Amino acid sequence: MHKAAHELTVQLGDRSYPIFISEGSLGHQDLSAYCAGDRVLIVTNETVAPLYLETAKGHFPGKRVDTAVLPDGERYKNWEVLNRIFDALLEHQHSRRTTLVALGGGVIGDMTGFAAAAYQRGVAFIQIPTSLLAQVDSSVGGKTGINHPLGKNMIGAFHQPEAVLIDPASLGTLPPNQFSAGMAEVIKYGLIRDEPFLAWLEEHVDELMALQADVLAEAIRRSCECKAAVVAADERESGVRATLNLGHTFGHAIETHTGYSEWLHGEAVAVGMLMAADLSERLGWLNYNDSVRLRQLLLRVRLPVTPPEGMTPVHFKALMAVDKKNVTGKLRLVLLRSIGEAVVTEDFDPALLDATLDHFCYPLD
Amino acid sequence: MHKAAHELTVQLGDRSYPIFISEGSLGHQDLSAYCAGDRVLIVTNETVAPLYLETAKGHFPGKRVDTAVLPDGERYKNWEVLNRIFDALLEHQHSRRTTLVALGGGVIGDMTGFAAAAYQRGVAFIQIPTSLLAQVDSSVGGKTGINHPLGKNMIGAFHQPEAVLIDPASLGTLPPNQFSAGMAEVIKYGLIRDEPFLAWLEEHVDELMALQADVLAEAIRRSCECKAAVVAADERESGVRATLNLGHTFGHAIETHTGYSEWLHGEAVAVGMLMAADLSERLGWLNYNDSVRLRQLLLRVRLPVTPPEGMTPVHFKALMAVDKKNVTGKLRLVLLRSIGEAVVTEDFDPALLDATLDHFCYPLD
Repeated sequence: MHKAAHELTVQLGDRSYPIFISEGSLGHQDLSAYCAGDRVLIVTNETVAPLYLETAKGHFPGKRVDTAVLPDGERYKNWEVLNRIFDALLEHQHSRRTTLVALGGGVIGDMTGFAAAAYQRGVAFIQIPTSLLAQVDSSVGGKTGINHPLGKNMIGAFHQPEAVLIDPASLGTLPPNQFSAGMAEVIKYGLIRDEPFLAWLEEHVDELMALQADVLAEAIRRSCECKAAVVAADERESGVRATLNLGHTFGHAIETHTGYSEWLHGEAVAVGMLMAADLSERLGWLNYNDSVRLRQLLLRVRLPVTPPEGMTPVHFKALMAVDKKNVTGKLRLVLLRSIGEAVVTEDFDPALLDATLDHFCYPLD
Repeated sequence: MHKAAHELTVQLGDRSYPIFISEGSLGHQDLSAYCAGDRVLIVTNETVAPLYLETAKGHFPGKRVDTAVLPDGERYKNWEVLNRIFDALLEHQHSRRTTLVALGGGVIGDMTGFAAAAYQRGVAFIQIPTSLLAQVDSSVGGKTGINHPLGKNMIGAFHQPEAVLIDPASLGTLPPNQFSAGMAEVIKYGLIRDEPFLAWLEEHVDELMALQADVLAEAIRRSCECKAAVVAADERESGVRATLNLGHTFGHAIETHTGYSEWLHGEAVAVGMLMAADLSERLGWLNYNDSVRLRQLLLRVRLPVTPPEGMTPVHFKALMAVDKKNVTGKLRLVLLRSIGEAVVTEDFDPALLDATLDHFCYPLD
């Protein structure tokens, strides 16, 4: 087995931080230098704890390590469960010089990051993502937060970690549907800014699905490079960072329609990206072969390519209208000028969006 | 009656903002230029709403203004009540380009500021403080937050407002004990960095207590100048900003001991400042006349000068040990090198602190 080790830097001035990507590194790399003081609180969930919690303590030799184990699932990404992190910090009398460690997927990362942003008005935190989605997307860039009953990720903060440690070997314990969902975000980077990466993914898709270590590490590295470059250019999402939302407005509509229980985020994004490609094709920006190419790649990584049965254009339009990316009243979408070049635009003929929705909701074949 | 209008700037680079201090300005100054978009949510409480809510809408001509009225009191500075602000924002579909307005005292300012920091990862907010404490202290500097059952202000953010509008006339409706409590913070500025201001306060204390408009505006201006200078030098409290906590470690012990119900924050700080002065005297930094001078000024603004009956040195020491300003295990206090010069130090003989505690808890006279 190849051992592949990569180190990247997210360039954010005095808030710059490293991303370490290395097979077998979980528990075996000293992260003390990224801690603010001599105390650490590792936050994880009931699924990840039995697999990696004891191992993860190995990152903090000489520190006093406390732990908080939360229930697993997006439905627990709320204030009540977040508060358990604050309870643990206060019960164990952690000061401002503590360091929080997020060990788990996107939900754990988002909640731990927000707890770190808000505890005593901001303490240090480290990301140790164990899902593919978290490794290639949510652990990098400092977006943190929780859900509100009236909206996803509506309460949060921009708070950058001190370091991100990624061990691709942890994907060996990830359920296959979650691996596929993470691949949706990997493919997204190729679509929005790196056509050669998309071609590389097409070439190596079988090795990726077989979790071949060096290929996996390379896919994660290139994804993190893309994410880091976009975040460095636009930390607070006033411009180019919005292109990372390719497929997300369609995808959020699917997630909301299905009550955030049946569809994984990445699955909804996969369909959403295909819908965005279809609309881009109708605008004359992509050609038919581009859409076919994307559809085939999504199918090869076992992602859905059609919206949930029974979901109509009326559902889509109602749910897309309240998406938070729509700030002026006009619907704003991320579309593709070409494979590898995304644009954020409100300037499209609504009749073409209708045609895309009809095409996906009422397939002729 | 004199009309006194002042404008200061809190210098924080691209987050700099103005403080307007002007008698009769509440409701009469167009603040549209400080709004991010065309929607505003004014947050206030049940006490302030009947007095100033309708008036305050006058600041936002042409904007669509929603309101949220919270219960009044420190005991409501918690997540459940904070969440009512998020409920209002989401029910009325406010986007990231909304502006929150805090109309009230320190609790409303802290909660509204934190809601603005966290809603969709950060939106704009404006402070319209109506209590003396909020006008001279909490509305300036960007400290926001809520309490946790295990600690005050334990959850929050640094989030600077777009503007602060202070109308000293609003103090006419403030209960006298709250006015006095605010005066504790005014006096604090003289003690920590501005001896001439302390002398000016001694000279004008009767006019201040009579709420004479121009004198009041001047006291607020000089207080805000002090606060703004300290915040500009040390936004995140890594150094000099900690001097603003003069009297607060003793004061928090009093507030905690009395369950945050009998003593106002400023009342506890008044006694705390006198205790800090006493300890500074024992260290040979102040002389006896300095302590007497401070004691007399506190009495003239009707603030307490002795801790609650029955509170012992043991109580003080137990409660001061958990104060969050103590980050290394050693007790760190703000003390006075001289009147007008504060220092943050851990370097004092504990026997002298014992003597101060004995002196205040077991008065001989």
